[in-house]
Order: sequence, then C-alpha cells, then structure tokens
Amino acid sequence: MSYAQALRCRECEREYPLDPAFFCQFCFGPLEVDYDYEAISRVMTRESVAAGPPTLWRYAPLLPCDPEYKVDLGTGYTPLLRADRLAEAIGLDTLWIKNDTVNPTWSFKDRVVSVAIARARQFGFTGIACASTGNLANSVAAHGAHAGMDTFVFIPDDLEEGKVVGSAIYSPALVMVRGSYDDVNRMCTELSHDQPWAFVNINVRPYYAEGSRTLAYEVAEQLGWRTPDHCVVPMASGSLFTKIWKGFKELHQVGLIDEPQTRMSGSQAAGCSPISTAYAEGTLNFRPQKPNTIARSLAIGNPADGFYALKTMQETEGGAEMATDQEIIDAVKLLAETEGIFAETAGGVTVACLKRMVESGHIRRDEETVAFITGGGLKTIEAVQGQLTEPLRVPASSDAFLEALEARRATEAGVAVAAGGA
Amino acid sequence: MSYAQALRCRECEREYPLDPAFFCQFCFGPLEVDYDYEAISRVMTRESVAAGPPTLWRYAPLLPCDPEYKVDLGTGYTPLLRADRLAEAIGLDTLWIKNDTVNPTWSFKDRVVSVAIARARQFGFTGIACASTGNLANSVAAHGAHAGMDTFVFIPDDLEEGKVVGSAIYSPALVMVRGSYDDVNRMCTELSHDQPWAFVNINVRPYYAEGSRTLAYEVAEQLGWRTPDHCVVPMASGSLFTKIWKGFKELHQVGLIDEPQTRMSGSQAAGCSPISTAYAEGTLNFRPQKPNTIARSLAIGNPADGFYALKTMQETEGGAEMATDQEIIDAVKLLAETEGIFAETAGGVTVACLKRMVESGHIRRDEETVAFITGGGLKTIEAVQGQLTEPLRVPASSDAFLEALEARRATEAGVAVAAGGA
Repeated sequence: MSYAQALRCRECEREYPLDPAFFCQFCFGPLEVDYDYEAISRVMTRESVAAGPPTLWRYAPLLPCDPEYKVDLGTGYTPLLRADRLAEAIGLDTLWIKNDTVNPTWSFKDRVVSVAIARARQFGFTGIACASTGNLANSVAAHGAHAGMDTFVFIPDDLEEGKVVGSAIYSPALVMVRGSYDDVNRMCTELSHDQPWAFVNINVRPYYAEGSRTLAYEVAEQLGWRTPDHCVVPMASGSLFTKIWKGFKELHQVGLIDEPQTRMSGSQAAGCSPISTAYAEGTLNFRPQKPNTIARSLAIGNPADGFYALKTMQETEGGAEMATDQEIIDAVKLLAETEGIFAETAGGVTVACLKRMVESGHIRRDEETVAFITGGGLKTIEAVQGQLTEPLRVPASSDAFLEALEARRATEAGVAVAAGGA
Repeated sequence: MSYAQALRCRECEREYPLDPAFFCQFCFGPLEVDYDYEAISRVMTRESVAAGPPTLWRYAPLLPCDPEYKVDLGTGYTPLLRADRLAEAIGLDTLWIKNDTVNPTWSFKDRVVSVAIARARQFGFTGIACASTGNLANSVAAHGAHAGMDTFVFIPDDLEEGKVVGSAIYSPALVMVRGSYDDVNRMCTELSHDQPWAFVNINVRPYYAEGSRTLAYEVAEQLGWRTPDHCVVPMASGSLFTKIWKGFKELHQVGLIDEPQTRMSGSQAAGCSPISTAYAEGTLNFRPQKPNTIARSLAIGNPADGFYALKTMQETEGGAEMATDQEIIDAVKLLAETEGIFAETAGGVTVACLKRMVESGHIRRDEETVAFITGGGLKTIEAVQGQLTEPLRVPASSDAFLEALEARRATEAGVAVAAGGA
C-alpha cells in the first residue's frame, strides 16, 4: 500500500485529494505529494529495505502509488562508484559517481516514469503521454509498451538520432513537433485538458516527480545510511535537484539517517542556464531563455522548478555553475577516460560544472562529493564524433600494426617534446 | 580468495597451473578452469549470496580470481523480467527475458571482462587488450580506463558507429583492422605471443570465459534457486552458450539447486550460422563461414567453442536455429513493442530464433523459457533506422496534432479495411 495521504500546494499549503491534478486552484502554486511519515517510520527499517528487490521498489513505502500497479522494467538501485581517478584529475579527495546510465532505457527518467505510470494505472488511465527532450520519451515509450497502454510521445523535431530511434523502436504514437521543448510542453499542457491520457510530466507531475527521490535513498543507503557533504546534480526543470534534497530530508524524518548536512549544487549548460544565471545574479527569480546547447536533454528554457531549485541552494549553502559546449564534450571524455563511464551530454555538463566548482573553491577538496550521471552516452554520439582520438587503421597484419603503433608513438613523443620546448 | 585450483584440458584432461595459458601443450585442446567445489560448497550458501553485493561479485567463490584485484563498474545482477506480452505473441505460457543491456557498457561482455581484467591484474599484467566484434571492445576500453591500464582494442574497420564511438570515448589505443573478426582474431593471437598484454579473449581466455557463468547463477537465483525448462542463448564463439550450462551444473554441484534439466538451445544469424548449420546437419563438426549479416556482434565465422556448443545441445536435448536479417529486425521491434526492451541485433537473433523454435514445436508451449538479451539497441541503430513507423510531424499546435492524428487513424483504418476486404 501507499502512505501518500494528500496533495499539498507548495505555496499556500492548501490540501487536495490524491487526484490527477498539478496546480493549486487558489494560488496556482505547484502541488506536491504529502505522506504519513510516522506510519512509514513504523514499517520501514534499514533491514526491511535491504530485504527488498534490487530496484527502486525497495523504497515502496515512500512512493506515491500502490506497488500492485507497478510496471517494472527493473529500474533503479544503480551503482554508486568510487571515482578515484576522476577525483585526482580535478582535485578532490573523495568523489562518487551515481551511474544512472544503466537503467532500462539508459537514463534516470525510468525512475520518474516507473512511479508515474503506476499511479496513472491506479487512477484508471489507459493512455500515457509526455512532452520530452528525449530521455523521457524513451522511457515513456518503453514503459507504455511493457504495460500495453496507448502511448503518446511528443518531442522537438531536431533531437539526436539516438533519442528518436530510442523512442520509435517501441512503436508509440511518436509526435515530432516543430519547435523547442518549451513549445512542446505548452502544446501538451493544452492537450492534457481534453485528452484522457496521463501526461506523466503534466497532469500527474506531482507523482512523477517523486520518483527522483529514489536517487537520494540509494545514495544514502549505498554510503552506509549517511549523506555526502556535497551533491552535484544536472538541472533541466530543476525538479530532480529539489527532489534529491527532499529525499535526504525524508530519510531523516523516518529515522533512517542523521540530519543531512549536504550542500546541493546544480549544473547547467551555458547555452541554457536560466537557473545557474539567476544563482550567479543572486536572485530567486530566473528569466526564461531560448536554449542553444548540445546538452539537449537539459534544454528547458523555462524551468518549472527553477524557483525551488534556487531556494534549495539557499537552504543548503549550495550553488550552481554552467559549462560551455566545448567544456561539456571535454568532460564527457574526461569521465570516460578516467572512470570508464560513457555519459550523454548532460553528464558532461555535470562533470564540467563539478570541475569548475572545485577550481573556484566552491567545493572544497575535503568535501565528499557525489556527482549524478543521469543518461548514457550512446544517446548523443553526435556530440563527441570527430572529437575523439583518431583510431589506428591497419591491414590484418601484426607487423603492420606494430609499425603503425611505433609511428604514432613517435609522433606523440615529438608533439610532447615540441610542447615541452615551447 | 579464489577456489580455482588448476587449468585443465577439455580434451585430454591434463592439468596445468593457473597461468596465462589457453591451450594444451600436448593435444592443443582448450584449457578450462577447475575449482575446489567441495570447499566452495562449504562457504557458499543461498544466504551468503543474498548478503552479497548486487553485482556478479555476489558469486565470488565461483570466480577464478581474487576479488581484491577486481575492477568493479557494477556489472551483473541484471533484471530477469517476466515477458507475458511477448510470450503471448509467440505462443508460450511462461517466458523470461534476462536483460543484460543494463550493464556498464550495455552488454554482457562486462561480465567476462570483469573477471579477465581482475585475473590479468593478479598475474601482474599492466596492459589489457582484445579482438572484438564491438561489444567486447567497448567493455575492455571502459574497464582499462577505470583501472588506468594500457589498453589495446582491435576491431574490424566496418563496425557500427555506436560501437566505434563506444570504444573510442574511453581513449584506448583503438585499432581498426581491414578484415573480418576472424582476421582480427588471428592477428591478435600472433601479437599475444610477444606483447606483454593480457588479451582477454586469447591468452587469458580460460578465465575470461568463466565470467559468463554468472548469467546462469543469476537466473537460477532470480527464479528462486531453480532452473528453467529451456534457455535460448545467442552464439558467436559458442562460449556463452556452453558456460551458462556449466553454471547451472556447478550450482547443483555446490548444493545450491536440484540437478538441472534445462534444455539449451542456441541462436545464430542465417548470415553467420556455422554452429546452427552443423546442428541442422546432425554433425558436431562445423564448417567455418564468411559472415554476411547485420548481427555484427555474432559474426564469428570460425567459432572457438562451436564444437562444445554442439555437444551441449546433444547433452541437454537442446538445439539451434538461425534467423534472416529481416527476421532479426522484426524481432528487435517485437521485443521492444511488447516488453519495452530495446536490444541490439544479437537480441533480435535470439527472439527471432525463439519464435521459430516455438513455431516448429522444438520448444513446447508449456516449457518455461529464458531468453538471453545480451546487448543494448543504441549500439546498432543503423539496423532499424528506416524500418520504424514514421513519426507524426506537426507544428506546435494541439489542433494541428489532433488533425494529423485523425488523418493517420483514418489511413490506418482504411488500410485495415482494404486488407480485411482483400
């Protein structure tokens, strides 16, 4: 069973029943799920969690849906990897990578969709839909297929090929919209008024967004039921960022960890940085932007939770950074070369911003830090093609290979000598 | 510690010490790792496994390397998903998908590389290498990067772009060889005589191959410590196929399950089917082929373990099938549409062959079956591009979308009526 007990307005705190609703009828503030934490604290122990499945459903009492409605592709409980080589490269003592590239559709969106589709089924919806920058589309299409539901997926018409094929393969009604994500989102909001579909990130958004908290639960559990000093999290709508912080606080509320002292810092691409720009300017009110960045999955110019992300930074003494497209590509490569993890561009944004935050002193060397890598690199190979070391091309002869290798090494040594002499 | 106690020739059963060696000095038979199963049965219980990490290292006593040398990207313990919609589509009562697309480099090769690189470090190698059809290259490059080892990756020069970028991103020495996989493999075998590198699938192959057994351990554990009636497994070298069967038998040997009665059946592409063709002809001696198939990751024309795969079919009353390129593509789509799992072409081979085996009566409707999906679909998007339902393309207007949707539905209904009337 679920311990969700109401929706509550984040602004005026008015309560609503657990319906497919997402904004307050009085003040238009966003609605958020409220739980009976006392009841949860009675049923949820470190031992009960450890005895659960190796998926996000191990935290079922904290999810806003009855598990009997779940559509389970095996999402969550992804690796938390100690990243010593990357830590050394950027000047940190202790760094962890939360690797969410190994979810069923290779991004963290499987978490929010798992929860949203379960709640949609519980509401009785037979259709599922979304407005997406790509990763969400992949996940909604896959989960809709697994559940045998009518599935409608709306994306901007200029997305990366991997993300288009990665949705189309599941045969949803795939709709490519001429416009930006923000245009797609406006159009879907209109459609949600009349169509009998659960738009996961619109009319069931309060439930959907709760799925992100499972990243916090996992990190805390994987660290031995404690929280890190600092988290660096990519920001698109800003929802993921705020929900990780909510997750840490909830674990304390139900008695599973000490009070979290974690500083929360967010990462954006310079080409779409409404939240990071507002942080830099010291305001809680961001100005919408027209995105222009290779980090398409973060290209939300008018972020729904931007205000709350900025409040979370204030509350936790965190901050925000932004990275140029070239820094993003270099960071994708750095993460791969040092840790063996191939992230999509959003992961490059996070590693590049992490590096900047260490360089600026915003993150101190001795702060134990977790960086959240939210999508796999095969989704955005266009971004790195042409920026990688040229392979050796040889005929099928070991002698030919050894000659080519020697020639390459001589060239590299020459370059190194020349560079050293300059 | 490891319970591996010797290498043993699979033909003449001569014993060798645990060295970097792979063939018998007397009869040239392949070497395989032997364990002290009695000691393992004393330390390994269902409870000790359950208390282990959610990775393949939960089966550490059955692995041929000391865990202290491990290079751990979090491989293994992947989902075993009940596939009711696919089962219904092809005519089975109970079907499970072992989804190995959610490993760190999105294929099962992370299993064999995890074990090979650990053993290579234990031997003192500082360089790691492989001959690969693509997936192994991705995995060796990633693990080599994570461990900070010299890394050499040899691939045919006409692989899919996702597999090339998916290796190059980790900055190994990437060598693209003009020739087939079999050419690349011959060249690497030569190099392994002189170079101080662990070629994971050549000079440390006996250890490497053992990693595949973890798939059997996981399936048995995930089914509640029992084995299925039938397994369908893709065959390239044939090693994975034989090792899954070995894994089931070992679990019985150490007292964790009843004696397995599983029938083992293998899948190949029609364009590279040396093992399936030999099975169809009723012989244990396959004839090498020149591969010509979109299933590049299975395109091994001269399979090292083909003979043992055929023996395993004989021993288990299993069999083999092959699928055309079009059947492979259709099966990739069928798996995605019914279960929400996007597999690379090798997964299409397995689902297409599974379908054929049910149709032919080789697999009976009431046999509980597990199909092994060994790599993710983003690695081979070329194979399905142009074969997917055309998206709806609309301007950013809900009215325009609804019109386009109605028009599409009218067309589809017209097509359906026309088809019904024909």
